[in-house]
Amino acid sequence: MTRPRHRVGEMAWNAWGDPGQTVRLNDSVRQLIRQALGVPAAVTAPVPESELSLEPSALSDPAHAALVEVVGREHVLTDPASRVRRTGGKSTPDLLRRRAGDVSSAPDAVVRPGTHQEVEELLAACAWHRVAVVPFGGGTSVVGGVEPLRGSFGSVVSLDLRRLDRLVALDTESGTATLEAGLRTPEAEEMLAAHGLTLGHFPQSFAYATIGGYAATRSSGQASAGYGRFDAMVVALRVATPRGTLDLGRAPASAAGPDLRQLFLGSEGVLGVITEVTVRVRKAPEDRGDEAWSFPDFTSGVTAVRRLAQRGTLPTAIRVSDETETFVNAAVAASPAPEGCLAVVSHEGTARQIAERRAAVDGVLRECGAAPLGEDTASAWRRSRFSGPYTRDALLDTGVLTETLETAASWSSLPRLRERVTGVLTESLGRDGSAPVVFCHLSHAYPTGASLYFTVAAAGGADPERRWREAKRAASEAIAESGGTITHHHAVGTDHRPWMEAEIGPLGVEVLTAVKSTVDPLGILNPGKLIPVLS
Amino acid sequence: MTRPRHRVGEMAWNAWGDPGQTVRLNDSVRQLIRQALGVPAAVTAPVPESELSLEPSALSDPAHAALVEVVGREHVLTDPASRVRRTGGKSTPDLLRRRAGDVSSAPDAVVRPGTHQEVEELLAACAWHRVAVVPFGGGTSVVGGVEPLRGSFGSVVSLDLRRLDRLVALDTESGTATLEAGLRTPEAEEMLAAHGLTLGHFPQSFAYATIGGYAATRSSGQASAGYGRFDAMVVALRVATPRGTLDLGRAPASAAGPDLRQLFLGSEGVLGVITEVTVRVRKAPEDRGDEAWSFPDFTSGVTAVRRLAQRGTLPTAIRVSDETETFVNAAVAASPAPEGCLAVVSHEGTARQIAERRAAVDGVLRECGAAPLGEDTASAWRRSRFSGPYTRDALLDTGVLTETLETAASWSSLPRLRERVTGVLTESLGRDGSAPVVFCHLSHAYPTGASLYFTVAAAGGADPERRWREAKRAASEAIAESGGTITHHHAVGTDHRPWMEAEIGPLGVEVLTAVKSTVDPLGILNPGKLIPVLS
Repeated sequence: MTRPRHRVGEMAWNAWGDPGQTVRLNDSVRQLIRQALGVPAAVTAPVPESELSLEPSALSDPAHAALVEVVGREHVLTDPASRVRRTGGKSTPDLLRRRAGDVSSAPDAVVRPGTHQEVEELLAACAWHRVAVVPFGGGTSVVGGVEPLRGSFGSVVSLDLRRLDRLVALDTESGTATLEAGLRTPEAEEMLAAHGLTLGHFPQSFAYATIGGYAATRSSGQASAGYGRFDAMVVALRVATPRGTLDLGRAPASAAGPDLRQLFLGSEGVLGVITEVTVRVRKAPEDRGDEAWSFPDFTSGVTAVRRLAQRGTLPTAIRVSDETETFVNAAVAASPAPEGCLAVVSHEGTARQIAERRAAVDGVLRECGAAPLGEDTASAWRRSRFSGPYTRDALLDTGVLTETLETAASWSSLPRLRERVTGVLTESLGRDGSAPVVFCHLSHAYPTGASLYFTVAAAGGADPERRWREAKRAASEAIAESGGTITHHHAVGTDHRPWMEAEIGPLGVEVLTAVKSTVDPLGILNPGKLIPVLS
Repeated sequence: MTRPRHRVGEMAWNAWGDPGQTVRLNDSVRQLIRQALGVPAAVTAPVPESELSLEPSALSDPAHAALVEVVGREHVLTDPASRVRRTGGKSTPDLLRRRAGDVSSAPDAVVRPGTHQEVEELLAACAWHRVAVVPFGGGTSVVGGVEPLRGSFGSVVSLDLRRLDRLVALDTESGTATLEAGLRTPEAEEMLAAHGLTLGHFPQSFAYATIGGYAATRSSGQASAGYGRFDAMVVALRVATPRGTLDLGRAPASAAGPDLRQLFLGSEGVLGVITEVTVRVRKAPEDRGDEAWSFPDFTSGVTAVRRLAQRGTLPTAIRVSDETETFVNAAVAASPAPEGCLAVVSHEGTARQIAERRAAVDGVLRECGAAPLGEDTASAWRRSRFSGPYTRDALLDTGVLTETLETAASWSSLPRLRERVTGVLTESLGRDGSAPVVFCHLSHAYPTGASLYFTVAAAGGADPERRWREAKRAASEAIAESGGTITHHHAVGTDHRPWMEAEIGPLGVEVLTAVKSTVDPLGILNPGKLIPVLS
């Protein structure tokens, strides 16, 4: 068993990521954005941490003692700084509330188990003392997944899994690694790199998100075309529940009944706490080649990606921006916008593999009218590919409301889905007469369909959180009506829960509820998330 | 909506497949086999259908009337021929019992719904009248999956799904087809071929197995390396349950919670009746190239397949026989056995794709010491690839007990797994002093592991069914102890049910039981299959 040498620190309490790292917008860009969106110059400054007022911990003394019994006093934290840092995730509404000084949903304590066994014992103790438990990995949820809701319980603890940080086993012949749930991606990659291996999972939350969180939310990374979605990499899972442990996954494939791993992948801490994940790992690529292309329009870009996916020749990563995203990204980078729609293509492997795959891919891109733009634009994408959330903080500082949402659907449904979602977002955010900007890109492709990722930017107004909630509701309705899934890789949490009945039907909701009752009869695990109450 | 032009007929009641089609072993081969295995010359002839004695149908008049109400009199069959033909599947124990005239597990009636709505109504009627329901597709189960067990009910009907035979929808842009559950593969392929498409699913049961059965059992075909397992082709499912309908699968990929499709894939009629399956379809290949190779030994063959799988360059189909299988197959075909181990490799696609992939594959095969044998041996494999079950009938006629079993495990577990299973099968079947033959091949490969498929041939003796049950139990124990899955593609049924607790743990069994209670509160669906009763 190995632990990582370098550990990634905690995130800022009211913003994304490393508190020492920020994106600064240059003044002319900020002016341009403000003018275009109609944002007033005066913006309320965020409430500093020193001025927060936190309710006292509601955890009872016996419950506190029981938790200390399991993990020791140093791992049951009730100090304000620890509680404030587990108040929720990193959606724009989360940040808006925290910037306004609202930390009312802080947990009553933060508990840090160091082993699977301790997680099991903590769940038993919390069940006994009727304490709600919210598993907390990287804290990067953008759907309310880690918000410490109490449900019907008097107190709630945040179960911080960061001490589960071991490489438990490595089977180089089978190409699998067993990783503990609390490892952040750079930590896991560091340990794999020592063996010349990689996981190949690069979501925007890369620096902070954890292995357990990826499994619990069915994450998808920017190189999903080459390495697959996270759920597709999972060979086995170890899950602690209030009713005991599940070890699922005995073979690369099986016909031994329903695949129960697929019940716990995407279970978002509601059905158990994932403590170990056995994943497929690969040889770290020797080389990489990024290229940018321009398509005459979004439709031709989508057609190209569809052909690549259906012919089985997708590159490691491919992303096509629509016209607006192409224009806005160029404007923010203060570089000239290419004609039509920008696409970024990335290949990983040996130099020879890259050359062969590039030849196959480039042929299809040209067939669909694309022209190469060289490597510079692609390099700019790579440099900034994890910085979106920092840019969001800078925009929020400027009084701009910005947020993203995503979906996936079959190829034949995509055009109408995109049109509807873009339309309702623009309409909702523009209802006050301002001019919101709404754009999207296609970034995860499969033989039968793809995902669309939308970004909005608008004047924040007096109540930006409410403004966004309304726009988000309209978009979610449009997605459900147009045959899309309510989420392709952000998961459900609180925010998508009202759409789960449309997604899986009332009987599907009953099935999930029955599973929940079996593994968590008292309902202490992550109340208020994922599974809706039937109307 | 389209229906197939050509329909495949029913199977023989006490043997595999087309009653007019049999494999004849030539006399010298039969003599050789008998001598080698120590089979006596006198063999009991099978009981003819005219001499069967069938219990009268136990279906009550009100229940019968309720079924007639839903589907009409012509689709509720109680005649002996119809009942006898749904007495069970096609495992060797099934055939041995039927050859001995045992049709005691015949259903009380055969009901043939024509629509999803009728299936729903039949389930409601059966629940009301407390009648057990066994969904019946192709009837090709080799694990007891379609045996009409009554459970705690007084009567049981076989729900024959063959009238659900429509191509419901075809989305050529997204590459998906919605097929009704009762279509046999050649019927589905005929309708897809009219659009230049194929499913690419070629299990040994190809001619008879149905689309719904493939989904309900997580089938895997001989070209799984190229086209994927059946469960991986499924985009959406429609399932009728006594509690209503589930429509699952909205997008090519989703993070909207647990993947409930994966609960009903592999549910073997225990959690519902799959009535429609939306599957990925592909352009029918323009060309094909089959080749045979010989490896110095099985280990080097396995290494080659592992490298191909991990490099992402598997051919459309690849299969490596061990030394004994290589020898026996050559002997049966009366052709000279190649040195070492035979491998068959098949590529499908355009001529150019085949040439490119062949170059990549051949390099790896040679790297592992393989030598090409030309196309003839491969063609012999292709000609006979669906005929195994007919050969089994001929061997049973000769007094030879023959049967197969399969598993899958990680690459690092495979050598020990193979050694253990071969060992215990040989030991168990040879306990009477005879000399059984046990061999295996590797036929489905994944980056993290592969499946092994074992065949045995032995003297039948006085009680061949019991002989096999004992050997099978020993093999199942060896599989569970060596880290394999109890089944890679034959499913669970009655035969693997005792091993399900080892496979998913007692809490996993409780989860399945809870799901079952939700969708089938009375437990009328396929009693005695898949989900074990906890000890």
